[in-house]
Amino acid sequence: MVERNRQVILRARPEAIPQAEHFALAEAPVPVPGEGQMLVRNRFLSVDPAMRGWVSAAANYSEPVAIGAVMRAITVGEVVASRHPDYAVGEHVCGLFGWQDYALSDGTNVWFRHDATQAPLATALGVLGINGITAYFGLLEAGRPQPGETVVVSTAAGAVGSAVGQIARIKGCRTVGITSSDAKMALCRDAFGYDVALSYRTGDLDAALADACPDGVDIYFDNTAGAISDAVYRHLAVGARCVICGTAAISSWDPWPDGPRLERHILVKRATLQGFLLFDYMARFGEARAQLGEWLAEGRLAHREEILDGLEQAPGAIARLYAGENLGKLLIRV
Amino acid sequence: MVERNRQVILRARPEAIPQAEHFALAEAPVPVPGEGQMLVRNRFLSVDPAMRGWVSAAANYSEPVAIGAVMRAITVGEVVASRHPDYAVGEHVCGLFGWQDYALSDGTNVWFRHDATQAPLATALGVLGINGITAYFGLLEAGRPQPGETVVVSTAAGAVGSAVGQIARIKGCRTVGITSSDAKMALCRDAFGYDVALSYRTGDLDAALADACPDGVDIYFDNTAGAISDAVYRHLAVGARCVICGTAAISSWDPWPDGPRLERHILVKRATLQGFLLFDYMARFGEARAQLGEWLAEGRLAHREEILDGLEQAPGAIARLYAGENLGKLLIRV
Repeated sequence: MVERNRQVILRARPEAIPQAEHFALAEAPVPVPGEGQMLVRNRFLSVDPAMRGWVSAAANYSEPVAIGAVMRAITVGEVVASRHPDYAVGEHVCGLFGWQDYALSDGTNVWFRHDATQAPLATALGVLGINGITAYFGLLEAGRPQPGETVVVSTAAGAVGSAVGQIARIKGCRTVGITSSDAKMALCRDAFGYDVALSYRTGDLDAALADACPDGVDIYFDNTAGAISDAVYRHLAVGARCVICGTAAISSWDPWPDGPRLERHILVKRATLQGFLLFDYMARFGEARAQLGEWLAEGRLAHREEILDGLEQAPGAIARLYAGENLGKLLIRV
Repeated sequence: MVERNRQVILRARPEAIPQAEHFALAEAPVPVPGEGQMLVRNRFLSVDPAMRGWVSAAANYSEPVAIGAVMRAITVGEVVASRHPDYAVGEHVCGLFGWQDYALSDGTNVWFRHDATQAPLATALGVLGINGITAYFGLLEAGRPQPGETVVVSTAAGAVGSAVGQIARIKGCRTVGITSSDAKMALCRDAFGYDVALSYRTGDLDAALADACPDGVDIYFDNTAGAISDAVYRHLAVGARCVICGTAAISSWDPWPDGPRLERHILVKRATLQGFLLFDYMARFGEARAQLGEWLAEGRLAHREEILDGLEQAPGAIARLYAGENLGKLLIRV
C-alpha cells in the first residue's frame, strides 16, 4: 500500500470566521525530496486565531491562502527523509508546513528545531512556540512591564494570554485576566496565577475593572478589541502601554465596524497603543525559547493543550477556537 | 489714578467649544508682591486649543478652572516688581499667569525666562514657546523621524503643525500637510515648505492621501482626530508612528463619539499611537528652545502670528481658534 498525503484545502473564502464548509479534505501522493529538500511528517497541526486573517482577501501582513491551496498552518513534525545538508532524519522541526500529513521543505519555512527530549513535541506549537513567543516579545518589548504595575489581559486563559499573565507575574506585576466563563476564571486563578479573574459575560465589566485596577491599567495586552477593549480603555493609567495582538471579538471588518473613539484616552493618559506581529521577531525566536524553556523547566509556566485527533478535525477547528470552547492551546494530532 | 488689574473670569462651564459668553471681564486691585514673590505685567496672552480642556469638567490632565476664577492661560510678561531672589525687574518670563494684566508669582508657575533681545517677545508663546516645543518633542521623541520618511500633519498651517512640518523637513522627511482652505494650503507650501498641501474641505481626502503618500504614512502628527484621522489611518505604512497631540475636530466628548475602529490598522501595520502632552517635558524645555532658537536665527523656521489687541478680545478667542479663522498663532496683546 502506497501511503497518501492527506491535505486540508481552502475551498471558499469566508466572509467572517472560517467554518468547516470553507475547507475540503483531499489526497495527493507523498512528495519525494529533491536535492536540497527534506520531507517532514507532521505530528501536530496548530489552530490559531491568525488563520482567519490568512484566508481573508482583505489587506493583511501576508498574501491570502489561494483557493484550492493547502491551508497555511504552523505545524511541528519529524524529518523522515532528507537531501538537505542542514537537516537530518529524526530531527523535529517547527514551521509553516500546512494542514497536511507531509510537507516538502527546503528549509526556508522552518522556524526552529525542537528537541523533544527537552520538552514535549506539542509545546513547540504552544508555550514554546508561537503563543509563548508572542507573549514573551509582546509583553516585554511592547508592554515593557515594571514591578508593581497592573497588567490586564484579554483572552486571559488562552494560549497567548495565559503566558502573558504568567510572564507578567514573573516580572513582578499584578495581573488581571478577562475571560468568558466560570471554568476559565478558575483556570486563570488556579493554574495561571492571576491576581484577579473577570468574566466579560457576567456583570458589569466596567465596574469590575474599576475594582480590580484601583490605580488604573498600566499594561493592556489585547487579543480581542471590541467591547472588552472599550471597557479597558476607560481605565488606563497615565503612561499606559497597550499591546494590540489580536482582534478576536470583531467578527468581520467588512463593513468596517465603529467603536468609541480612542484619541482622547490616548491623549489624556499619554498612552501608547502598539500593534504586535510575531513575524517581526523571527530572528529572535531562539532567545525567547531559551527563556521560556527555562521557566517551563522550573515549573513557573503552566500551560494547557486541547488535542483533537485526526486531520479531519481541522476544517471545523478555527470556528471552534473563535467560539472559545477550548480550554487550552488547540492542536490537531496527525 | 490707581491702575486696576483687568481680568477675564470663567463665568460658566461650556459643554463644547468655549464661547465669549462663558467668560466675563472683571477688575481687581493690582496685587503687591510679598516676600519671595514678584509682580508680572503680562504683555501677550496665549490662545490655545488646550484651553477647551482646562474649562471642561471631564477627566483631564489638570484640575478644571473654577467658575469665578481667572482663566488659566500661558502668557509672557515683564517683571515689574520683585521680592523674589531669582527674578529681577525688567526680566521677561513665560508661564501660567492667566488672562489678566498683572499676576503675582512665587516662581512656581514660571516656565522659562525669555531674552527679548534674541527673539521677539511674542515668539515665547509660539515658535519658541509651547507650540514649537510641542512640535519639537512630539515629532522627535514620539514620531522618531528618519530621513526619507513621509510625515503627515493635521492642522498643518497651525502654530504646532507648521513647526512640525518644518522640523520634519529639517530632519530629511517628505512632508504632507492637511489644512482647511486655499489660503492655508498656499501658506503650507510657500511659507512652511510642505512638499504637498491638501485640504480636507475640498475633494476626496482619501484619494488625495493615496496620491500624496504612495509608500504610506510613516509618521502622522495629529491635532484633530475625527474624519481627517480616519482617512490618514487607512494609509499607514508598516511601522508607522502616530502622535496624538490634539482632538480639535471633536466638538464634544459627551456623549462620547464613535469612529472607525483602529485596532486592525494598528495590528496589520504594527503601528504605534502615542499620546503627547507637553507638560511631561517641562524639565527639557531649555533643550528644545535652544535648538528652535538656532533654527529660527538661521531662517529655517518660519512662523506666523495673528495678534488681537486688548484683553476684551480674549473671551471670544478660543471659539475663533476652533473656527480656524486665524492665519498664525493667535495672541492677545495687553
